[in-house]
Amino acid sequence: MQRLPGIGPKSAQRLAFYILKLPESEVQAFAKALINAKQRTGLCTKCFHFSEKPICEICSNTNRDSNLICVVADSRDVIALEKTREYKGMYHVLGGIMSPIDGIGPEQLNVEPLVRRVSQENIKEVILAISPTVEGETMTLYLCQVLKAFTKVTRIAFGLPVGGDLEYTDEITLARALAGRQELS
Amino acid sequence: MQRLPGIGPKSAQRLAFYILKLPESEVQAFAKALINAKQRTGLCTKCFHFSEKPICEICSNTNRDSNLICVVADSRDVIALEKTREYKGMYHVLGGIMSPIDGIGPEQLNVEPLVRRVSQENIKEVILAISPTVEGETMTLYLCQVLKAFTKVTRIAFGLPVGGDLEYTDEITLARALAGRQELS
Repeated sequence: MQRLPGIGPKSAQRLAFYILKLPESEVQAFAKALINAKQRTGLCTKCFHFSEKPICEICSNTNRDSNLICVVADSRDVIALEKTREYKGMYHVLGGIMSPIDGIGPEQLNVEPLVRRVSQENIKEVILAISPTVEGETMTLYLCQVLKAFTKVTRIAFGLPVGGDLEYTDEITLARALAGRQELS
Repeated sequence: MQRLPGIGPKSAQRLAFYILKLPESEVQAFAKALINAKQRTGLCTKCFHFSEKPICEICSNTNRDSNLICVVADSRDVIALEKTREYKGMYHVLGGIMSPIDGIGPEQLNVEPLVRRVSQENIKEVILAISPTVEGETMTLYLCQVLKAFTKVTRIAFGLPVGGDLEYTDEITLARALAGRQELS
């Protein structure tokens, strides 16, 4: 239990005792559900998002714009973006972020399949939606270099979060918000 | 003491007892400093930022770009933007945000002097740097309508704060970050 993310020794003990108190039939059902979920869920062969079928529901949805690819680090980011209900294109999940210290380079990520998609399909725009951390910025610049020969490459905007306050925003974010200012009409 | 911002009954008591324990000369000096600061500090007649002179140091600095005005709600926002060391133009402090519920309209703020500045001086761009709250958005749209006849009007970017994580960003901010995406080169 302690190996689960966000579960420390105390929580692990609480969870373990809860399981021990459950009737055996429920524990069996729970264990079965875990194995089932693991066995049935694979990765979409196209975008590498979690999927029960070889091609995920987003990739096979013909109502979505297949000329637009949004590149994210993780399947969780797909879910975050889907919650906005604003984006109607496709995704590509990298499966992580480049990190030379941990030995993670482009080869360990789904970069090559992305380049193949962009170069072979009729892609009008690639949106890089990678978190603005140090590693994320490196990854964004790297992907831009690799992809810009094939199509238009954009990145999501950085600036003040909605509802945020100018006074309490850090200087780097403020500087980027100023640099990224947009004309009003 | 309780009337000071962010000071509750307990803190007020602590501050009061601290003052009572100080030697009288120091209390005299402190009181004098407060009065002095209040008497010497007024508002810049041009941009309404706090200033000891009729024209503040920013407005009278000839190294700064006098064709660019950044509009903010409060003097504290000027200080926040100055800390970025990125902005080299002028400012205009509105002195608050429009709020119909509290009876604050454009007439209660320094909107008219701003319109006069923009219409009479050779201003190339007005940057609206107002916090993205409900009132702030209304204020931004209002100023855009009033000013766009005279010059180019831009607003600071909204999106992910630098160092932020896609997964933990609220949906509205994510949607705006997507909508405000910019091309990489």
